[in-house]
Amino acid sequence: MRTIKRCLTFMMLGLSVLAGTAYAEWQALPDTAPAPKDNPTTPEKVELGKMLYFDKRLSQNGTVSCQSCHNVMEGGDDSRPTSVGVEAQLGSRNAPTVFNSAFHASQFWDGRAASLEEQAKGPITNPVEMGMPDLSLAMERVRQLDGYAPYFTAAFGTDEITIDRIAQAIAAYERTLITPDTPYDRFVKGDSEALTARQQRGMETFAAVGCQACHSGANFSGQMDPDTPRQLQRFPVFASSRFVKEYGLMEDKGRFESTGKEADKHMWKVPTLRNIALTAPYFHNGKVNTLEEAVRVMGSAQLNQDLSDQQVADIAAFLRSLTGEGLKQTMPHLPPTPGGMLQ
Amino acid sequence: MRTIKRCLTFMMLGLSVLAGTAYAEWQALPDTAPAPKDNPTTPEKVELGKMLYFDKRLSQNGTVSCQSCHNVMEGGDDSRPTSVGVEAQLGSRNAPTVFNSAFHASQFWDGRAASLEEQAKGPITNPVEMGMPDLSLAMERVRQLDGYAPYFTAAFGTDEITIDRIAQAIAAYERTLITPDTPYDRFVKGDSEALTARQQRGMETFAAVGCQACHSGANFSGQMDPDTPRQLQRFPVFASSRFVKEYGLMEDKGRFESTGKEADKHMWKVPTLRNIALTAPYFHNGKVNTLEEAVRVMGSAQLNQDLSDQQVADIAAFLRSLTGEGLKQTMPHLPPTPGGMLQ
Repeated sequence: MRTIKRCLTFMMLGLSVLAGTAYAEWQALPDTAPAPKDNPTTPEKVELGKMLYFDKRLSQNGTVSCQSCHNVMEGGDDSRPTSVGVEAQLGSRNAPTVFNSAFHASQFWDGRAASLEEQAKGPITNPVEMGMPDLSLAMERVRQLDGYAPYFTAAFGTDEITIDRIAQAIAAYERTLITPDTPYDRFVKGDSEALTARQQRGMETFAAVGCQACHSGANFSGQMDPDTPRQLQRFPVFASSRFVKEYGLMEDKGRFESTGKEADKHMWKVPTLRNIALTAPYFHNGKVNTLEEAVRVMGSAQLNQDLSDQQVADIAAFLRSLTGEGLKQTMPHLPPTPGGMLQ
Repeated sequence: MRTIKRCLTFMMLGLSVLAGTAYAEWQALPDTAPAPKDNPTTPEKVELGKMLYFDKRLSQNGTVSCQSCHNVMEGGDDSRPTSVGVEAQLGSRNAPTVFNSAFHASQFWDGRAASLEEQAKGPITNPVEMGMPDLSLAMERVRQLDGYAPYFTAAFGTDEITIDRIAQAIAAYERTLITPDTPYDRFVKGDSEALTARQQRGMETFAAVGCQACHSGANFSGQMDPDTPRQLQRFPVFASSRFVKEYGLMEDKGRFESTGKEADKHMWKVPTLRNIALTAPYFHNGKVNTLEEAVRVMGSAQLNQDLSDQQVADIAAFLRSLTGEGLKQTMPHLPPTPGGMLQ
């Protein structure tokens, strides 16, 4: 059994090396997030993006914004198992944190969007999220809000309002929602007192048991470069784990749900572990309530290991060192709504 | 007919004089809002109150906060005809702006709450708003959010979390949501260029046609002192106005709906006119879409006057001078949610 485990860890290692990720190499998060060449991050675009991120009028009845499910005043998520959209409709997946999503090589749980720009358009027309009939209507809404024009001019040079510009601005704002300088980052940069003894032990255990095979790199989400081929990982690897049934981990078939391809069954993007202490409940279905239990589930379902209570506690303590300071942000001011726009 | 109108205006004038409000006396909004003796406004209490104001966990399924319907990033309201609460339930009245509510002598459309503290508790357990089964459960939620304890200590001296303290903190925050220094205020204080010629004409018309009989004082909401007996006004006064049927203005019987007393039929609090340009659609049922039409409706239903297009345009222009600058606020940081709290 130990041999099988070792082989598996070795295989995973091999995969991650092939993919160019650095195993057991601890990296601090950069102070700025990369931006695509055609959407450089500027203060004006970020300000516009923040307004749009908070603007509930991008939803059918004016009750749901990006912020509704990706709450930047909490952990960048909504603290619910799965999200509630317009007309009280329940989504099927747990809202991922928006924090550091800029460092993900792809977006959504199943990585189906290649960029934040592409992602931003998704929820707007998702019938159980923001519920707009189509993107052109969302664009029309913003056009009808006169107050936006000068902000588009400042951000893009002209006051033309397009859905691509809306998405670009939101993505630019999201690229500022990053949380470097956690205790972990300070430790990696040389402050040996930034982590407690238990956290340092947890860091070693995290690496030793194989978590880094997937949760590698500065964002603990593996591949960060959006220009390399999209990488998903199987979850759960060990379908026989008792947790799989207990938490219904195979009910949602991951990427397969949108492609229908057999090879995509139970394939998922590797989510960041940063700020994980703020984003309970856990997993794509939000069925696991505590960080300790989430670690135990991952040990069993991904690494076929029954982690000891000590290992679980140590790893959880380490993961808590990945929590960033709350972002200092001013509230945006949104232009007023013409009467009759929302019904 | 003119005589009847004049008599009516005179009667209203008489009433307002009796009530101690100052007719045709233009007042600027104070720079700070008054606070009750047992709840002085302190920076620590305001900070805690802001956190709670934005905290959706005070609602049954974690999707609705004070901010949801009283959006301080827009006009202090939700821009909808009536609000959407938990489980997509539709309220029956238009969300009033939270801005300058601190200057109202009573709260809610029908004035049924004597203070902001009392008001703050209402929506939490309203089944179509935040939908908590009772206030003790809301209190329990906040107690389970460990991160709040130090903020209660800073605000109240001890970390005891009670529903009264929650309401006091929210009220303290709301007392900071005031918008003095509008063009109107600057004009009243002596800056003769703060209003356009049209706005000045509108100001005169506003007084001349009788709007100030009810919309008096610095907040344009009549009585501001919560210690005097509660004053409501009849709306509509002229049930025969064509607008009454067109906009269903008598379907909701105002204060009567909560007291069942005949004398309370169609009695309402006088709402502030400050920031009214930001808070379309209008009236308790949110059925009137534009400010111009709202002025026309009031002229007809309250003063029995068919205002001319010129009068309407001038008054609307004047009312637009009551719009404050957007408040400069930082976003609060809310403590994380234990997994399993929200379902």
